[in-house]
Amino acid sequence: MKIGLLGHGVVGSGVRKIIDDAGTPYTKDLQITKILVKDEWEMTDERMTMNADDILDDPDIDIVAECMGGIEPARTFLLKALKNGKHIVTSNKKMLAVSAAELFEEAGKQGKTIRYEASCGGGIPWMSSLCRTRRIDTVTSFRGIFNGTTNYILSRMADEKKSFAQMLKEAQELGYAERDPSDDIDGYDVRYKVMLSCMRAFGTIISAEDIPVCGIRHISEEDLAWADANGYVCKLIGSAEDRDDCISACVMPVFVKKTDDFANIRLNFNAIESRSGTLGSCIYVGQGAGSLPTAHAVVQDLIDIQTGQDGACDTLMRTHTVNSDHKGVYYIRTAKMTVFNEVIGRRVSETAFLTDTVSLNEISALIRTADDDSLFIAEVDE
Amino acid sequence: MKIGLLGHGVVGSGVRKIIDDAGTPYTKDLQITKILVKDEWEMTDERMTMNADDILDDPDIDIVAECMGGIEPARTFLLKALKNGKHIVTSNKKMLAVSAAELFEEAGKQGKTIRYEASCGGGIPWMSSLCRTRRIDTVTSFRGIFNGTTNYILSRMADEKKSFAQMLKEAQELGYAERDPSDDIDGYDVRYKVMLSCMRAFGTIISAEDIPVCGIRHISEEDLAWADANGYVCKLIGSAEDRDDCISACVMPVFVKKTDDFANIRLNFNAIESRSGTLGSCIYVGQGAGSLPTAHAVVQDLIDIQTGQDGACDTLMRTHTVNSDHKGVYYIRTAKMTVFNEVIGRRVSETAFLTDTVSLNEISALIRTADDDSLFIAEVDE
Repeated sequence: MKIGLLGHGVVGSGVRKIIDDAGTPYTKDLQITKILVKDEWEMTDERMTMNADDILDDPDIDIVAECMGGIEPARTFLLKALKNGKHIVTSNKKMLAVSAAELFEEAGKQGKTIRYEASCGGGIPWMSSLCRTRRIDTVTSFRGIFNGTTNYILSRMADEKKSFAQMLKEAQELGYAERDPSDDIDGYDVRYKVMLSCMRAFGTIISAEDIPVCGIRHISEEDLAWADANGYVCKLIGSAEDRDDCISACVMPVFVKKTDDFANIRLNFNAIESRSGTLGSCIYVGQGAGSLPTAHAVVQDLIDIQTGQDGACDTLMRTHTVNSDHKGVYYIRTAKMTVFNEVIGRRVSETAFLTDTVSLNEISALIRTADDDSLFIAEVDE
Repeated sequence: MKIGLLGHGVVGSGVRKIIDDAGTPYTKDLQITKILVKDEWEMTDERMTMNADDILDDPDIDIVAECMGGIEPARTFLLKALKNGKHIVTSNKKMLAVSAAELFEEAGKQGKTIRYEASCGGGIPWMSSLCRTRRIDTVTSFRGIFNGTTNYILSRMADEKKSFAQMLKEAQELGYAERDPSDDIDGYDVRYKVMLSCMRAFGTIISAEDIPVCGIRHISEEDLAWADANGYVCKLIGSAEDRDDCISACVMPVFVKKTDDFANIRLNFNAIESRSGTLGSCIYVGQGAGSLPTAHAVVQDLIDIQTGQDGACDTLMRTHTVNSDHKGVYYIRTAKMTVFNEVIGRRVSETAFLTDTVSLNEISALIRTADDDSLFIAEVDE
């Protein structure tokens, strides 16, 4: 199969390397014929071009693999690729999460495939495993540590008893966090991944914006000290459940028990758990980012298209509304404690408390009332 | 595809249930036409027969799925099925581990497929994930908690501070351990699974008997108390590494750090980690046994054959010798301490000590010399 590669950065260059190295009979059958780059200095190979149409309009190219990042022009390029009768593979979670409906509609019209293994969990075979599980089971729910940057920061804060700011800086120096880390630390990156996982797990398209999200920007050493002393570890968890008439989904810091399967998932590793009828709980752990693991996932998608495998997973696409209300116990630290008087179960410090068992919607309303910019909230596993 | 099912016990009845329920387009395309049972009272369905030849000689049957257990007559039945031009699927690790060479030779002659997802890790998609990983990578090593019975006993001993005998009894009462638990607690079950995983991970057939094995039969509360006090948890680990000219493989209790990914794998769950070139470390966690999870794995194999997927994994079968010598630190408790004088690094009690960093072969030789029936040994992770 002839492949046009859009983007030659961290992931794209890994894809080129794996396919050019052709280490197995499967990768030998793939051929990258053109590569879109952004700048003149990247034109190091005769396959490089700075004009996307050289790829999108090339009738010899069967699959367009997009590793550019950003919503535009990636979305426009992929729509054009589909219209020109090409399969598409993408590692671009943000673009796909906001453009899924129109891309899948076009793919349906053209009878072409969209694959996105690399958009979630890096090299972990999460999307393909969901596909495989659904050959037999209905997937009822999933939860995961979907973001390596925040997991790195949380692990290191717990290890070193240092502040969020210090550990964010360390993550940035090591290349685990971007200069503007907002998408990671505020939970938006996880929200996109939960939305995409709902597509594969439940066969439904929901709006990412409808998923409640709380990040870790305001977590303090005090919060982690309380968690540690009470047998917990803090993880940023994205989760979703198929309730038939709606999808419940949420992104939130969770104090998981030290005996939880997720408690020992450290540094920049990811872990994702699915639950389904006959298989029960199944957990996948691996590197959630990095050039080669993520490129590995892109190449797996290319091989699946080349060999005609697992294509049936996205054919039953429904749409669902999101209703994430559920009951839980929450740890909240806020300068505006009085707003929460009705739901305080137990005070743990001057500024922090545990709620009674309350509904997420009720807590969300109180948080809006409190309007406290530095509030930190975590759900407490019981 | 028409399927003949050999055996209708715990796993076989689960396979029948999943296929008869036909909950998905994939399972709808499978059809069990005949089922071999052992006794008259099991003949509850017109498909039941007590004569295996009704299945093996039936030209309409495409795949024979064997869930009988035991080496014979399962081996003879499957050889005949292959000779009669049928694909075979088996959940029978012991039979396959000792008969792999002749079965794969016959399958090669006939151009038929042998699949054995359910033989390792129950419902965990371990074998298929290895196949998938190898489409791109070379797998260099793996390690796993492959046995739910012993993991249950070790977890419960640590929780309850009770003896091996008490927790074995509990496991037997709950149906997690058999009346004769030797294969599980002496590590033989894990040894078969390591041998089968080597086939899939490295494409090689080794002799299971060449893999060094130490079980947990003689573990005491004292051993676990030392592990706990020193930051360790005890797990029975099967592992293997491809050293190109040989395979290093071993089954042994390991004191893993409490922060290890495997430390929180509790009760009857299994966890298996592979390492490979571009993907790095990837861990799979799930239910290692049970009727429906194991049956799920058998049905996945049937669907793979039906849809022609992932068949290329077993075509490059080599053979290797086993050389498992490697250096490590060991915890040993023995009534014959003096035999080990040369390698004692630090005494931890009257009867237990840690070795210096020593070779496994050297320790194995000393253990043979000691001839101490109640000796307990565990490797200590550093």
